[in-house]
Parts: sequence; structure tokens; C-alpha cells
Amino acid sequence: MIPITLKAQDSKSLARVTEFTLRGVKIETPQFMPVGTRGAVKTLDSADLQALGFPIILGNTYHLYLKPGIEVLREHGGLHNFTGFSGAMLTDSGGFQIFSLEGMRKLDEQGVTFQSVYDGSKHRFEPASVIQIQRAIGADIMMCLDECPPGDAPRSYIEKSMELTHRWAIQCVEEFTRDPGRQHLFGIFQGGVHQDLRERSLKFIQDLPFSGIAIGGLSVGESREDMSRVLQHVGPLMDPHRLHYLMGVGTPHDFLTAIECGVDLFDCVMPTRVARHGRAFTANGQVNLLNSRFRTQLSAIDSHCDCRICQNYSASYVHHLLKMKETTGQRLLTWHNLAFFKNFLKNAREAIGAGQFLEFRDHWLERL
Amino acid sequence: MIPITLKAQDSKSLARVTEFTLRGVKIETPQFMPVGTRGAVKTLDSADLQALGFPIILGNTYHLYLKPGIEVLREHGGLHNFTGFSGAMLTDSGGFQIFSLEGMRKLDEQGVTFQSVYDGSKHRFEPASVIQIQRAIGADIMMCLDECPPGDAPRSYIEKSMELTHRWAIQCVEEFTRDPGRQHLFGIFQGGVHQDLRERSLKFIQDLPFSGIAIGGLSVGESREDMSRVLQHVGPLMDPHRLHYLMGVGTPHDFLTAIECGVDLFDCVMPTRVARHGRAFTANGQVNLLNSRFRTQLSAIDSHCDCRICQNYSASYVHHLLKMKETTGQRLLTWHNLAFFKNFLKNAREAIGAGQFLEFRDHWLERL
Repeated sequence: MIPITLKAQDSKSLARVTEFTLRGVKIETPQFMPVGTRGAVKTLDSADLQALGFPIILGNTYHLYLKPGIEVLREHGGLHNFTGFSGAMLTDSGGFQIFSLEGMRKLDEQGVTFQSVYDGSKHRFEPASVIQIQRAIGADIMMCLDECPPGDAPRSYIEKSMELTHRWAIQCVEEFTRDPGRQHLFGIFQGGVHQDLRERSLKFIQDLPFSGIAIGGLSVGESREDMSRVLQHVGPLMDPHRLHYLMGVGTPHDFLTAIECGVDLFDCVMPTRVARHGRAFTANGQVNLLNSRFRTQLSAIDSHCDCRICQNYSASYVHHLLKMKETTGQRLLTWHNLAFFKNFLKNAREAIGAGQFLEFRDHWLERL
Repeated sequence: MIPITLKAQDSKSLARVTEFTLRGVKIETPQFMPVGTRGAVKTLDSADLQALGFPIILGNTYHLYLKPGIEVLREHGGLHNFTGFSGAMLTDSGGFQIFSLEGMRKLDEQGVTFQSVYDGSKHRFEPASVIQIQRAIGADIMMCLDECPPGDAPRSYIEKSMELTHRWAIQCVEEFTRDPGRQHLFGIFQGGVHQDLRERSLKFIQDLPFSGIAIGGLSVGESREDMSRVLQHVGPLMDPHRLHYLMGVGTPHDFLTAIECGVDLFDCVMPTRVARHGRAFTANGQVNLLNSRFRTQLSAIDSHCDCRICQNYSASYVHHLLKMKETTGQRLLTWHNLAFFKNFLKNAREAIGAGQFLEFRDHWLERL
């Protein structure tokens, strides 16, 4: 179990600030984890992430298992050494990627068989094997294999799938317990947008000895109202002594709702992916830097931002690099967007600490 | 004129160490200038170049004139502010790019008319106008417009072209002298691989009040022997009180020959371009990091290299990123190659200072 310290609890909502330590690194929540899909957060290296100040990042088991492969990671002594990142790491189970591979994967009671997107070769993930893979990767936090059904699946399928995820969770715990080492395991509960299923699934997962509880199966196509309703329902039911992780979410707007419901951890490709398409997060919402109005803007992308990019470069410069398809432009914008996310959550923590989270939320809901 | 201090002169060759100051930045030669084509050295930003320790970089007038355009650069107060680079800058005249545009440009006595590669629009460069453009760009060192004939052009064409370059040089000096500000102007001499033409051209250019003498029209397809022969011929004839710049060169191998002939400054896209194709410069020559033998190489790209990449990442990691087409891989390799060039020239300066340049040359010729 990961010991967590409650540093602040909002009196009018479930919003909270916690602190825990992994690999000697202090992590305060609410916290955002940048996604290092294939051993790098796209356009950045480990020195950049450390300069940006992220204490924890996410790696994708599915991609890393295929390339460079577990053998290479094992020879390096794990993903930390491979990437040179000295902070903490969480790996997903690969389930989300596999279940996105419509037509290239086959599910059964024991696991899932799938084809590599790289060379079409056949592979199989089972609850115990994904734990073994994540053990070799050396992540500080590992995730259980779950089935992640699409947002528009019928209730009967969501329920059946949820029960399979529960049986797999038990197998993951068994394999994990055999040799926990210094690693930790999070469980994932499912249930789609159905409150009774969510409640059942949360209870089942929470009864197992996980260090953290992850909310799976949100941000998969459901409406913002549905996501909000589920979070408001499960928030008060989540064990306050464990970490709460909302997988694959999201935007500053989503963070506000989730933090209010007691969520501690987030990850999402959003800030890095949209950066590569020229989109910047700013204090006034998203803007497209490719827009010609930025051609001559001498001021920064976001005049409220104290990141290295906004302190040193004009929006005009970033616009020019993006227009010219210079990868430096994508890199500068990736940096800014991650800094924006980091600052947003730092400000959220400070607001909670000051007993003003709802004011913070309302202030931002107005702006975004 | 740029005052230069002779710090060391090799007794057995023309190799020398000089120092000069531009924009408050001390520059020691022999020195390599990374090429920031469109306002960025590809995959890097200005903070990277400063961390790498380059005191001077090169910008391409042709590209910058077309995009972002002089108006945008002027609004920023010049290329330094636009890119955030606080070191010195040299801009080429755009001639080399225009004369590479076979079929898209038309030369006459007064200048050259060409089409933009971006939108096909028509533009014209004349000797005086390229000085005005470089004035707006704000480069610390500007270059004259020259015609750069192909390496395989007949002698008669080379001679005619050289004479045009001479007439243009006078016009560049006239326009420059009108308002030198804090900028400096280098002349370019031509003459292909013909020693008598080279001699005439050098004398003509050297008789004009340029701060530096650039050797143009080499590294345009002639053999290494021809380049070496020309350099050995012109080396002793170049004014030792001015800077000697070999344009568009090159590789460590080329540097050795050129330094021996008294060259001070170099620029080339080679280290950055080959990096994007997976090629690394090492103490044992060039290697292709995409080669499968690097898949499991736990040691650095170059075990002799003290750059940040070789100190922090395995060759296996860089191989993986390049294979996955992650731009981070191109960036790490660009960084390494530039660090290799920088260290190579630093070591050359030290060898000259220690009176051991020819030993240094022979040591490297054996390895490369």
C-alpha cells in the first residue's frame, strides 16, 4: 500500500490535496501525468520533463511491450534507466489500446489475443502476464488488465464485461502478491454510465488490496453530463485512504469536476497531441496557433503564463515554426501546454489549501 | 572591421586560433556555426543552442525573407529577438539557395528573379537589396550576394560568373557603407577549382573593406582532392588580419584540411541533417543508429563523448526512438552531432594552442 498524507480537505466538496512518495520523489495531488507512449513524451526527453517539474509520468505497456520489447527494457534494468527519467512512473495495462484495435483482437475468459500494429504478429495478454510485463518494465505503479467497453455498448454488455474485469482483477492481485517488490498495484472499476453498476464495481475493486482505485471507462465517448453524474455518484464512495485516478482525462474543464469529486490523479494525451496540431491551452481557453492572427502577435502565447516558452518566445515565432512544419514549433507548444496543465493543477492545490476550491472552479468555468 | 586577436599560430601550417567579439559574445576560431534555416536549428530551440554552447549561428536570408518575411522580423526588432538567441548571428545572402532553384530563377546583370518555393510568387534579389534585407534581419555578420555556379560548370562560365560576383561585391559594399550600424560585411570569392581564377578573385575581394573573406563555390560537387588543392593554394594568400570563412563545409575530415590552410569559420547542415536520418558522428566515424546492432547497445552512441545525450541515454534508446519515428530521437541525435562538432573544433583549438595541430590532424585522419 502507498501511504498517503492528507494535506488539505475542502469543506464544501470532496476536493483534497494529498502527498505520497514513490522512488524518493514527493508527489502532490491533484496531479497530472504526461503520457510517454513509446518511452518518450512526444517531442520531449527526460531532461525536459524534469525541467518542467513533473514528478510522475505514464508509460504505455502495449506499445513498450511491442517496441522496444521487454527483453530490451529488462537489459536496461527497466523503463526508468531506458528513458533516463528519474521521477516516478505508472504504466497502464495495455487493455485500453488493445480494445481500441477493433477486428485485430479476440477476447476470451482468460485474456485477449491481438495483432501487433507494427508487423501483424500475434500476441496475447492475460491478467497475470500483464503484471509480469509491468514488473519487467519496472513501473512504480502498475495497472490491472481490464476490458474497456466502448461508450455506446449496451448495458448488458457493460455488465458482463465488468464482471470479467472483476475476475481478472483477482488474478492480477494474485500475480502481484507473488512478488510485489517496490511496485504498487492499482485496480480499475468499470460500469459505464450506469450508477448501480459503477457502485457494484467500485465496491468489488475496493475490497481488494489495491494502493489506488482507478475510474476506467470514462472519457470514451459519453457526454460531459454523464461523466459528471458518474463522478458525483462514485466520489463519496471511494476509500479516502487510497489514491483516486481518473484514467485518460482530460481537459482543465474535466479536472474541475473530477477534483470536486475527490479525484487525485489524471493522465491524458490531450495537451501533447493538440500541441502537435498547433493548439494551445491558455487562460482564455484553447487557441489555434496556426491561425493567421498570430502571424504578427509579438506577445506570448498566453500572457498569464510563466512557462519558459511564454517568457522567451512570441506567439508569432511559434506560429511561424508551426506553419513551416518545424518540429521545434511542436516541441515549444508541447512544453507550453504541459506547463499550463501543471500550473493549473498547482493552482487547484493552492485553492484547496486556502479553502477556496469552489471559487477557483467557478472562476475557471467562466473563463474556459 | 571586426578586430581579431591571434591567440595561437601553428608553426608548421596556417592553422591558427583567433578570438573576436560580436554582440558582447566572445567567439574563438576555428568555430562551427549550426544552421538555423528558418529561424530554428531543426529540432532545437535557442535555449538548446545556448546549453550546447554555440556562440554564433547562421540564418538563411532566402528562407527568412520568404517566411516569416521581413515585416515580421522588423516588428520583432530582428532575428535575435524573433528566435530568442542571444549569441551572434551570420546570415548568408540567399544566393546559394536561389542558384539551386534550377528553372525557377532568372539571372541578369543587376540581380536575380526567382519564384518562392512556398507559393510560386515572384521575387527579386539584387546586391543592394540583400544587404537591406540582412540589415532588417539584424545579423551581426552579413554576406554579399554572389553567383554560385555548379561544380561542373565550364571554366568560361565560372570566369564570367566570378566577374559578375565582383561587380555585385562593390554594390554590396556601397549599400553597406551607407549605414553599417553595428553590423559587419563579409565578401565571397569564387573561381571554382581553377587556381588562377581563385587567385584573381581572392585579390579582388580582399581589396574591398570586408571584415571577413569567405570561400564560396566549394563543396558543390568537386572532389575532395580539388577542394584540398584550392584551399592549399589560397590559404597563404588570405589576409591574416581578417576572418576566413569556408561556406557550407562540412565534415570533421574537411575541417582538418581547411584549418591547416588557415580557415576560421565553418557552417554546414550536415550534422543536423544526417541526425534526422539516424546518422551519428562518433570518434570512429559515422554510424547509422537505425542499424539493428544498436537495438540492444546499452552503452552510449559514442563512449568518448561527454555530451548530455551520451551521458544520459543508451544507443539502444536512441535507436528505439528513431525506429518509432519519434521526433525526440531526431532531437537527441541532432544534439549529439552538434556537440561532436563543437568538441572536435574545441580540441582542434587546443591542439593548435599546444603546437600539436599536425599530430591532431594525423590522429583523426586515421580514425575517420
